[in-house]
Amino acid sequence: MRAEIITIGDELLIGQVVDTNSAWIAEKLNEYGIELYQITSVHDQREHIIAALDEAFGRADIVLTTGGLGPTKDDITKHVLCEYFGTHLIEDARVRTHIEHLYSNRPDVLNRLTATQWLVPENAEILENRVGSAPLMVFHHGQQLLASMPGVPYEMKIAMEEQILPYIGRATASIIHKTLQVTGISESALAILLDEYEASMPASLHLAYLPKDGVIRLRLSAYGDLPEEGVTRWFGRLKVLVKDYLIADTDEPLEVLVGNILKARHQTISTAESCTGGKLAALLNKHAGSSAFYWGSIISYDNSVKEHLLGVPEEMIKKHGVVSEEVVRVMAESVRKQLNTDFSIATSGIAGPSGGTETKPVGTVWIAWATPKGTTAECFQLGKLREQVTDRACTKALIGLLKRLEE
Amino acid sequence: MRAEIITIGDELLIGQVVDTNSAWIAEKLNEYGIELYQITSVHDQREHIIAALDEAFGRADIVLTTGGLGPTKDDITKHVLCEYFGTHLIEDARVRTHIEHLYSNRPDVLNRLTATQWLVPENAEILENRVGSAPLMVFHHGQQLLASMPGVPYEMKIAMEEQILPYIGRATASIIHKTLQVTGISESALAILLDEYEASMPASLHLAYLPKDGVIRLRLSAYGDLPEEGVTRWFGRLKVLVKDYLIADTDEPLEVLVGNILKARHQTISTAESCTGGKLAALLNKHAGSSAFYWGSIISYDNSVKEHLLGVPEEMIKKHGVVSEEVVRVMAESVRKQLNTDFSIATSGIAGPSGGTETKPVGTVWIAWATPKGTTAECFQLGKLREQVTDRACTKALIGLLKRLEE
Repeated sequence: MRAEIITIGDELLIGQVVDTNSAWIAEKLNEYGIELYQITSVHDQREHIIAALDEAFGRADIVLTTGGLGPTKDDITKHVLCEYFGTHLIEDARVRTHIEHLYSNRPDVLNRLTATQWLVPENAEILENRVGSAPLMVFHHGQQLLASMPGVPYEMKIAMEEQILPYIGRATASIIHKTLQVTGISESALAILLDEYEASMPASLHLAYLPKDGVIRLRLSAYGDLPEEGVTRWFGRLKVLVKDYLIADTDEPLEVLVGNILKARHQTISTAESCTGGKLAALLNKHAGSSAFYWGSIISYDNSVKEHLLGVPEEMIKKHGVVSEEVVRVMAESVRKQLNTDFSIATSGIAGPSGGTETKPVGTVWIAWATPKGTTAECFQLGKLREQVTDRACTKALIGLLKRLEE
Repeated sequence: MRAEIITIGDELLIGQVVDTNSAWIAEKLNEYGIELYQITSVHDQREHIIAALDEAFGRADIVLTTGGLGPTKDDITKHVLCEYFGTHLIEDARVRTHIEHLYSNRPDVLNRLTATQWLVPENAEILENRVGSAPLMVFHHGQQLLASMPGVPYEMKIAMEEQILPYIGRATASIIHKTLQVTGISESALAILLDEYEASMPASLHLAYLPKDGVIRLRLSAYGDLPEEGVTRWFGRLKVLVKDYLIADTDEPLEVLVGNILKARHQTISTAESCTGGKLAALLNKHAGSSAFYWGSIISYDNSVKEHLLGVPEEMIKKHGVVSEEVVRVMAESVRKQLNTDFSIATSGIAGPSGGTETKPVGTVWIAWATPKGTTAECFQLGKLREQVTDRACTKALIGLLKRLEE
């Protein structure tokens, strides 16, 4: 079974909003064994939407649209779908009750524009949008179907999980993806290492390389009728081939891998961050359940904070600079001791664009790990762009921690 | 002049990677006065890429492709473009020299796969990819042109800014966007407030509503021949109409607005975060130059950290709970004093999914602002989803700070 996504909204095409919905939907469809063939982003414009619908129905069984369902004039998706499916709007009493209940505490919202939200296309099935006012609409188009959802990510996610996916039902086709993560090898060297392996793969298997921030994810995808145990066998061979570089044999983010190990061992962590400025802390507590292992952090962007809160001696900063092995070691040990955690990570670097010198150019980052076995530190050169430097520093910090957790 | 983007890569269609490139490219094209008509994401698959190229050339003057240029087998873009434009690969001595220089310190990368990177299509113009090995290729297709770039965001951005955009040249067509931001009013109430205004707008003007995390961005777009001063006049009228809710008359993120005010006044800020866990700190120091106003943070995820590092009395936590006005006020005042900053923000809330109670359900967040004029605190209900709660808490924290900076 094949699906396509059409995302509707001028904001996507002038770069005001990044389309995070499509990747999320894609992942869900894959779990359901539905192949996502294409993603198309179009303007809030009648002719453009109609052309995209025609093209998508020429290729896919299921068309999912997001966006354009607000009560304001720029949102036209509902009207265009009415025209496309040859129907008109009628009032839906159930939707009206739901919206009136949803906004019972907010009389300012229950106005004549919001009232247009309970007008729905007569020949569409209306599914419940538990958290918003835009109706979830399903249209049948011969054997094909179209589901229209709001573009607001939170609403769309609940709509997909609670309504659209159960509606579509678990498809029978099987797509299996298995991913592992490696580090410490270049993409081309890895490809050469796997040359024979790739050459001997059956046609229904596909290997993809996804490099990011110093980690390469290797994704093995099985389309068609290769049985699960066959895929598992090929994945096992892959793991053996890359064993010297292997970080994980799943697609789970590094912070989840780290969190799972710490939780299982009832151990805790803290961070002392300069250049990463809270990004590492936010990563560690991004996922539910992080309070079991993440205790807290001291973000010392200014040197005064390094001195007063982390006890880095002023003379040490003068002698070695704040981006130095000496300083990150003190930072890591100090936060580990003060927050009484088993592990800690400290970062200090030059994220740029300014602040670089001949000997310490932009992108220089020192990272220290304090563990029950002692403190170690490493220096990295992580590129020239501020965001790149801080993202990569977080990745290096987590890879370094994973290694030390496994020692 | 009209452009389209084709992003190429299976990873986009199984949800392994979010396409952040397109929004970035869209913004740049707009600055250049080039209208982006459509974004299409397709598989690393010959027939699919060719179909997308045919469709895009049927609509646009410029086609930009990203992705599929790595040295590994799954990347086929260069070969498909060769076929599409009826050419073949030849060695490019300049590209070879560049790649050999780029990897002069990394002999493991200079292998036979990397060597395929200096094979380029004979009839393409090759632009310099300063930071990577994939060639930037420009093909001419009658009056139309296609530029092919790597999918790695850092490489793509440098390629666009240094090579592709100057190549395309500043187009003559003019698209003007002006954006303002409001808060404290629902989308529908705002639309009713602007009903007459919208009805009287000329056809070349378009107003879009972009709600996110409690802030609505209103974007006024002028297509065609309305002169700049006309757009400015309409934008001025809009500002007057929404003045009671106005946060900013630009599209700049809240953290940039806050940073600009603090920098101009030579004032500083720190944060004490519980539920936001470093996200607010990372936002405040996301942009270059933040070290001028952002001093640091104490992230107190665990209660012991609130007690030991922020001096929150144990009895206070027992009596009022950690998610309380009393506790956030102490947190804010303590971090402001310890880090010696002019302002501070503290957050404590229940991000979920667990931890909610009858009186303090998931989504309850207390925020306190400590300023030279004193400390104030507010309580918010910010939804049910962990990421939503913490994102919205950061937005509320910054809006609250902006207000207090303007007092």
